[in-house]
Amino acid sequence: MIKVGVVGGTGYTGVELLRLLALHPQVQLVAITSRGEAGRRVEDLFPNLRGHVDLAFSEPDLDRLGDCELVFFATPNGIAMGMAGDLLARGVKIIDLAADFRLKDPQQWQQWYGMAHACPDLLAEAVYGLPEVNRKAISAARLVANPGCYPTAVQLGLLPLLEAGCIESDGLVADCKSGVSGAGRGASIGTLLAEASESFKAYAVPGHRHLPEIRQGLAQGAGSEVGLTFVPHLTPMIRGIHATLYARLKDTAVDLQEVFAARYRAEPFVDVLPAGSHPETRTVKGANHCRIAVHRAPDTGTVVVLSVIDNLVKGAAGQAVQNMNIMSGFDEAEGLHGIGLVP
Amino acid sequence: MIKVGVVGGTGYTGVELLRLLALHPQVQLVAITSRGEAGRRVEDLFPNLRGHVDLAFSEPDLDRLGDCELVFFATPNGIAMGMAGDLLARGVKIIDLAADFRLKDPQQWQQWYGMAHACPDLLAEAVYGLPEVNRKAISAARLVANPGCYPTAVQLGLLPLLEAGCIESDGLVADCKSGVSGAGRGASIGTLLAEASESFKAYAVPGHRHLPEIRQGLAQGAGSEVGLTFVPHLTPMIRGIHATLYARLKDTAVDLQEVFAARYRAEPFVDVLPAGSHPETRTVKGANHCRIAVHRAPDTGTVVVLSVIDNLVKGAAGQAVQNMNIMSGFDEAEGLHGIGLVP
Amino acid sequence: MIKVGVVGGTGYTGVELLRLLALHPQVQLVAITSRGEAGRRVEDLFPNLRGHVDLAFSEPDLDRLGDCELVFFATPNGIAMGMAGDLLARGVKIIDLAADFRLKDPQQWQQWYGMAHACPDLLAEAVYGLPEVNRKAISAARLVANPGCYPTAVQLGLLPLLEAGCIESDGLVADCKSGVSGAGRGASIGTLLAEASESFKAYAVPGHRHLPEIRQGLAQGAGSEVGLTFVPHLTPMIRGIHATLYARLKDTAVDLQEVFAARYRAEPFVDVLPAGSHPETRTVKGANHCRIAVHRAPDTGTVVVLSVIDNLVKGAAGQAVQNMNIMSGFDEAEGLHGIGLVP
Amino acid sequence: MIKVGVVGGTGYTGVELLRLLALHPQVQLVAITSRGEAGRRVEDLFPNLRGHVDLAFSEPDLDRLGDCELVFFATPNGIAMGMAGDLLARGVKIIDLAADFRLKDPQQWQQWYGMAHACPDLLAEAVYGLPEVNRKAISAARLVANPGCYPTAVQLGLLPLLEAGCIESDGLVADCKSGVSGAGRGASIGTLLAEASESFKAYAVPGHRHLPEIRQGLAQGAGSEVGLTFVPHLTPMIRGIHATLYARLKDTAVDLQEVFAARYRAEPFVDVLPAGSHPETRTVKGANHCRIAVHRAPDTGTVVVLSVIDNLVKGAAGQAVQNMNIMSGFDEAEGLHGIGLVP
Repeated sequence: MIKVGVVGGTGYTGVELLRLLALHPQVQLVAITSRGEAGRRVEDLFPNLRGHVDLAFSEPDLDRLGDCELVFFATPNGIAMGMAGDLLARGVKIIDLAADFRLKDPQQWQQWYGMAHACPDLLAEAVYGLPEVNRKAISAARLVANPGCYPTAVQLGLLPLLEAGCIESDGLVADCKSGVSGAGRGASIGTLLAEASESFKAYAVPGHRHLPEIRQGLAQGAGSEVGLTFVPHLTPMIRGIHATLYARLKDTAVDLQEVFAARYRAEPFVDVLPAGSHPETRTVKGANHCRIAVHRAPDTGTVVVLSVIDNLVKGAAGQAVQNMNIMSGFDEAEGLHGIGLVP
Repeated sequence: MIKVGVVGGTGYTGVELLRLLALHPQVQLVAITSRGEAGRRVEDLFPNLRGHVDLAFSEPDLDRLGDCELVFFATPNGIAMGMAGDLLARGVKIIDLAADFRLKDPQQWQQWYGMAHACPDLLAEAVYGLPEVNRKAISAARLVANPGCYPTAVQLGLLPLLEAGCIESDGLVADCKSGVSGAGRGASIGTLLAEASESFKAYAVPGHRHLPEIRQGLAQGAGSEVGLTFVPHLTPMIRGIHATLYARLKDTAVDLQEVFAARYRAEPFVDVLPAGSHPETRTVKGANHCRIAVHRAPDTGTVVVLSVIDNLVKGAAGQAVQNMNIMSGFDEAEGLHGIGLVP
Repeated sequence: MIKVGVVGGTGYTGVELLRLLALHPQVQLVAITSRGEAGRRVEDLFPNLRGHVDLAFSEPDLDRLGDCELVFFATPNGIAMGMAGDLLARGVKIIDLAADFRLKDPQQWQQWYGMAHACPDLLAEAVYGLPEVNRKAISAARLVANPGCYPTAVQLGLLPLLEAGCIESDGLVADCKSGVSGAGRGASIGTLLAEASESFKAYAVPGHRHLPEIRQGLAQGAGSEVGLTFVPHLTPMIRGIHATLYARLKDTAVDLQEVFAARYRAEPFVDVLPAGSHPETRTVKGANHCRIAVHRAPDTGTVVVLSVIDNLVKGAAGQAVQNMNIMSGFDEAEGLHGIGLVP
Repeated sequence: MIKVGVVGGTGYTGVELLRLLALHPQVQLVAITSRGEAGRRVEDLFPNLRGHVDLAFSEPDLDRLGDCELVFFATPNGIAMGMAGDLLARGVKIIDLAADFRLKDPQQWQQWYGMAHACPDLLAEAVYGLPEVNRKAISAARLVANPGCYPTAVQLGLLPLLEAGCIESDGLVADCKSGVSGAGRGASIGTLLAEASESFKAYAVPGHRHLPEIRQGLAQGAGSEVGLTFVPHLTPMIRGIHATLYARLKDTAVDLQEVFAARYRAEPFVDVLPAGSHPETRTVKGANHCRIAVHRAPDTGTVVVLSVIDNLVKGAAGQAVQNMNIMSGFDEAEGLHGIGLVP
């Protein structure tokens, strides 16, 4: 049992984190902070948590958070990097669900996030929290950068092929579709039901912040830079990411199904579907799984990978809990047994 | 004013065709046939048409249809080819919204549609009804094969680039997303609201019937065979297709925006959006427009085209009416002034 | 052909009004104002109007609006009453789609809308724009108060019974369900897709501004005050209102179907469905119709009326155009021939 | 730990039951039967259960089911009554999620369900499984009739008022809205996404099978017959029921909030919200809770109760597990700790 705090619990990753932590048998939730909602009871903002979370939001306070053994940041970008140093100094472990520690290069971070990085030294120490790649480093880490939602789906879908060396590392295409919860709980016209429902669109084709994060991860797996076109789309549903991934095969004789099966055989949260499958995002709604299928396109040398996650679970809060489990020596699946809500 | 008949008016393309024809000032609708619903009033099945269509479904009858100047087939594949010869012999023009006359090669047709073609001779005569490519031939045609929904969105998006010779003709990717009305009005578990809502999936990755149709059209525009990977996806909305198209640029100095603007300047139903735009499918909901935007992907030599249509309008019934207008010497936009229903 | 202006064209009733006016053969749209969007092209904000509305938003300006023969206000409550006097003085007719002139009693208006009424004298002159009740007065009016969306659906459903004297005038229940476009195009958390989709809730049970408006209209029809419980609900769809109305029958022998048929026989936009029907809101999506069915509840003396409209059309912009047609001596259905978009 | 079987596990209540039972610490799932899918692996039909249910569907077989300590029927109406006698004779307890044992009067059952009841003697023995009313009888029961979804929401909302004698027992109105999963997993046109999405309608106004069930339960609580009008509506969402309930107050001085608070203070799965609340169905999505708010309508003597459940959980599978827990002496909340999935 560990004492846990959540900084910034009022967004969608925040409430999902609270849902998972409230049922986690090894967690004692001791602080949930929000400047905007300080003093308000959590169950008042999120009535689904009535009877499960008996706390009020509080001001972010280093002393209170300093009593925790682990603190999650479910804050906008730029907050965690301002508090991380002080908390680490007090012996508190940190999992940042925002982007502050995801890119290794502070220059690149500044370019994409529009501000100077507050603690570039910690960038070097931070471990990128994709357990399927960095499990061992995560288990020893003080500071984990929880991956972005698109980067999780894309990396889990392309890494087996890049690591096995069976695809060209340029000309990669990641056509990704996300439910609107990925846009957050902020009031905005573009994600009103009357705007985003019964419609479909691409966005950020000229450049999205997840592009450098994906490239960094893929390059690590490939052992060299990759060429990637990444196009995200807004999908009229609440939860779910579907990444459709295209690459040119180097070796058309390779057993693609076996490449994926071998890579993920021991992974508790990556499920390689039988050959010929088409995963549906709803099978992981509320669950921490990534489901993957691999196909060869007809009459071309192109491999097509279909990778689905719940953007709020394996793409955010669930992966954060998975990282907490690894960092704390718990069973990696503790508190993450939820089954996709179908229908 | 011409007398028009509709064979098979009980599906989604059928009811959409009725909606458009009911308001068309040059059309007298004289017969709507359906074996299954013969005798039932149209407004009973489709109450939205109350006050607009004062007919009952009738058995398909050659004499009655023979009185029409033009007959639309909104039937399952394989029906139109069985009746086309007789109707043409009676001087009736035909627009087939199904796939019977879309592929020029009867062998290929048989391979993808699982039955022998009933009148391969008419395949040669049939004109592929994409006005932006074949307007002149359509104006002289007796028999028009109305394009499929995906093929319309993909061809309109890629043809300007292929015709201009500025992209490689292999390695093309068409990642397409369709609303569920594209699956038709048949009772099936997979398209129940409780199955298809709040979820997203690819389907038919191993091969979809629209693949050879798209390839045939693109090859014609390119002047040579093309290499294309086509992946359709089921999207939790009723109407709309969004095609996200990827190609490798041959010439990175080309003015992509101008290529599209020039190609479609005179087209009444293709709208090239300003540079940097992301078209939303809802802007064409119920309208006959195709809206297109073109982007260059960051840091790669890849062009990304975004092409949206309403699958039931420009992707089916609207394009059929557009073809009828051309074949009948009407204003091409007659009866097609509807504006996308936003919100 | 008349010159028409729209004040406040950036909300959902505004864009719907533009969609209808752009296709109206007797209307020349000369001004669309918006303080917030002044200078921006209309098609930039609403790409569905590309090619149909060639105007930019302008500052609301009395001189420019004064050149119009008729001006629509699609503004928040409280704006029209500030400009109405000046415009009327310049000979401009006004249709207010907001609530400024709906209630006859300025005291009551102040109580529900939280501000003093700016021109109580005009309240007396204003005609309540429900054509099925006030057609003659509308045709002579300078100033029309376009009814609210809920009040339209409820009044059309209950007035035939009250006028015929066959129900008790107290104990009425109006259980109403609205799509979220009724909440407007303002950025707010509660109507985000991720909040309002896949959920259903009542709101404003302690009191909603449409309650006094409905009561006023029903009392006029009944010839005495009525007792009404009105509960609105937010429904996870974009457009549509479904009113389920309950009343106790005075006379259980009355032919309810005939009461409705007789009342609306000559009405172009009220469609009484055959006995036993259940109207669907989608049959009026984008159309100006109200569809009504009447039932007797099993084993009780209760009548159940089902009344559906599109909240943005018959519940707002369409009814406003209907009123304009009546005020201008046009065919009442001019520009309103749109058929419900099914599916 | 008990051995449990499920007869008819291919519908929505079936898959939801499997989701709950798979995670229940006291349950060993030993048989899932389906005539139509016998031999097929459960995870093949429901990929969300991959890794959680390692069984194939089997033919319904008395010997195999006879080894269970408890069997759930998630079958169409009329199946359970044919097998119940044999299973009870083998010492197997039964929970029927269909309607076979819900009505006490076999005549009435035949009238509403269109077939003679196969074992009217067992009707007398069967306990109606609404724990908030019959907890003690359930704990001793061999045969439990799991309540219908609408009846659960309506009874929990009206019983406190009827039991307290503070409302008239006639003139009750239950205006109920259900997500489409309530219509089941059968292929049908009416519940296709393209039909049921973006639309709202009432159905079965002339009579619904849940009407006699609700009346029976309310009469028991009231101590006399009740007069009730019940109108169900199809809502464009997957899960959730919202019951809006209207009754005339006998005693306008009563503290309605306290009536509900007192009645449900000790109930683990009924949550009375603070005064002035409007429960959202999503707060119970996937959870076994019923959330209730009570209001007095403005200016009338009418009480309005808002009662929400997840139709597949508290309205079906969750309540069935709750009944199993009571019948088996487990903690009543065992396996039912799931929190509503928000967003």
